[in-house]
Amino acid sequence: MFHDETQFVAWLQAQASGRASTLRLGIGDDAAVVEGPPGWDYLLKTDMSIEDVHFTAALHPPLAVGHRALARPLSDIAAMGGRPRFALVALAVSKRAPHGWIKRLYAGIFTLARRFGVMVVGGDTAIVEGKTFIDVVVVGEVRRGRAIRRSGARPGDQVYVSGRLGLAELGLRVLGTQGGGQPGEWRRLKAAAVSAHLYPEPRSGLGRYLSGKRLASALIDVSDGLSTDLAHLCGASGVGARVWADRIPAPTLGSTRVAATQALELALHGGEDYELLFTVRPGKANRVPSRFRGIRINRIGEIEKTRRLLLIGADGKPAPLRPAGYDHFRK
Amino acid sequence: MFHDETQFVAWLQAQASGRASTLRLGIGDDAAVVEGPPGWDYLLKTDMSIEDVHFTAALHPPLAVGHRALARPLSDIAAMGGRPRFALVALAVSKRAPHGWIKRLYAGIFTLARRFGVMVVGGDTAIVEGKTFIDVVVVGEVRRGRAIRRSGARPGDQVYVSGRLGLAELGLRVLGTQGGGQPGEWRRLKAAAVSAHLYPEPRSGLGRYLSGKRLASALIDVSDGLSTDLAHLCGASGVGARVWADRIPAPTLGSTRVAATQALELALHGGEDYELLFTVRPGKANRVPSRFRGIRINRIGEIEKTRRLLLIGADGKPAPLRPAGYDHFRK
Repeated sequence: MFHDETQFVAWLQAQASGRASTLRLGIGDDAAVVEGPPGWDYLLKTDMSIEDVHFTAALHPPLAVGHRALARPLSDIAAMGGRPRFALVALAVSKRAPHGWIKRLYAGIFTLARRFGVMVVGGDTAIVEGKTFIDVVVVGEVRRGRAIRRSGARPGDQVYVSGRLGLAELGLRVLGTQGGGQPGEWRRLKAAAVSAHLYPEPRSGLGRYLSGKRLASALIDVSDGLSTDLAHLCGASGVGARVWADRIPAPTLGSTRVAATQALELALHGGEDYELLFTVRPGKANRVPSRFRGIRINRIGEIEKTRRLLLIGADGKPAPLRPAGYDHFRK
Repeated sequence: MFHDETQFVAWLQAQASGRASTLRLGIGDDAAVVEGPPGWDYLLKTDMSIEDVHFTAALHPPLAVGHRALARPLSDIAAMGGRPRFALVALAVSKRAPHGWIKRLYAGIFTLARRFGVMVVGGDTAIVEGKTFIDVVVVGEVRRGRAIRRSGARPGDQVYVSGRLGLAELGLRVLGTQGGGQPGEWRRLKAAAVSAHLYPEPRSGLGRYLSGKRLASALIDVSDGLSTDLAHLCGASGVGARVWADRIPAPTLGSTRVAATQALELALHGGEDYELLFTVRPGKANRVPSRFRGIRINRIGEIEKTRRLLLIGADGKPAPLRPAGYDHFRK
């Protein structure tokens, strides 16, 4: 019926069309924007976490399931340049979940909520026969008119990404595997990767910095993978981009060519890093810090007029960069 | 772990405690209240609809599944005296759902949304192996400080309920049964009951009327059944109540004593009617209309100081009224 997400979102937008004085931005960006208290807009975002889609009972501790369920919408609020304020938690928990599981799941949510100053103001809970399902809604706030959309990139804008990409995907792949007998370097990388997957850190401070300083022309979080989210940003802005392979902050898997290729693949297409991908007008590029609160900010490419994505290899040769991250309609 | 809903809500409230200038009311009422645009508060509510808990693929048409999924939070916004404005729809739809099912489900949501002036501003969708799960969040608005809580009832207040109770429960029981050969009267009642179950009408106008006229001291929607929701209202207010059996607007099942008893049971404990249950100070009771836009408003009882619920029979004899409606932790 819907062949991909873009088609579905377009259909949903057509169905939901309508105007009111207080709606500023509807379906299609990281969050909706509605009028808030004087001088402020509210950001609204809902995100599902489903057993055997986003987590498994066997591999994910409940603390991580709760953490990740809240981290996802927190990252979307960050990707609008907002500060998260309130959350609503809908939880249908499987009868199979062991005793205490639900409390540790909530502990994961509440610990992250407190750290980000988010109040859980409502919820709905049920015990179900089937799989566990969590839906978390976060209400954020941003100075009026300062929400950063996906659609503001223009040709010549510089493309940046925070942190390291591909670690969370690597963490997912090695989750539950044994580490005995491996060299210390690999064990450390593995631990970092598992932690990146289980306890991602939404870039709330960076998002607010970009909005407060009016630095970013467009902003999205890397939840589906760089190649896919860059395509989302460029699609919304009606532009293309070129990115340099050797500038992409990939995990260090080893010094061989095969290892480097694998690392780049992870960084390009691995999902759930929840880093921020943003564009900056050329005249403001010198104001972008190389680090923000300990997180590296890497300039990885440039926006172009032609609506295509190019990956420039270490040898300088361009190749098409195809979105190969997570597609919500592919499964 | 949690033996009933009250215990769970108390635990959740303790976990979620915290203060901010813009939070007006947290967990425990029909909706949370946060600061809105100048002169307004926003109401936030999330409600889940789960396959084989709230609906079945065999008995509920997708149009009704969508309608009911939105009607539930709309009713909660009405139960705060608010006007619904925005909705977010999270949908995990089962792979087993037939072609076109998802479109008809959304049609059910959007048709009701348009009728109530609600804009769907965001959502999240996934295809899942297991059962279908829908979470709808509604953001409503109410004049600042005018949200009507469950906790405002005082001894002497009169108790009112809108519409007819027990019809939706009757509808659920007869759903899918054959009606051939039955008398016309029963067929008409059955059709009304099935319609009440499949397409409940949130009492948005009445809720806003009660808030606008400052008529109600406490307000809740009858989603879990009168006996249970009256207990919720009285518990939050720290009071008790007596209700008169012969004033309760039960469905007409026939003239026999057995039929009358069955009808009363349905009206007392049947859920999902989404009517409004509210209390009014004695001095304002003469201002409560007997009808509001065609819907009957019945005075069914009185708030008492003693924290117990009494049902006064037609013979004038009181009996304890035990909450026997839907308990989210009983299943």
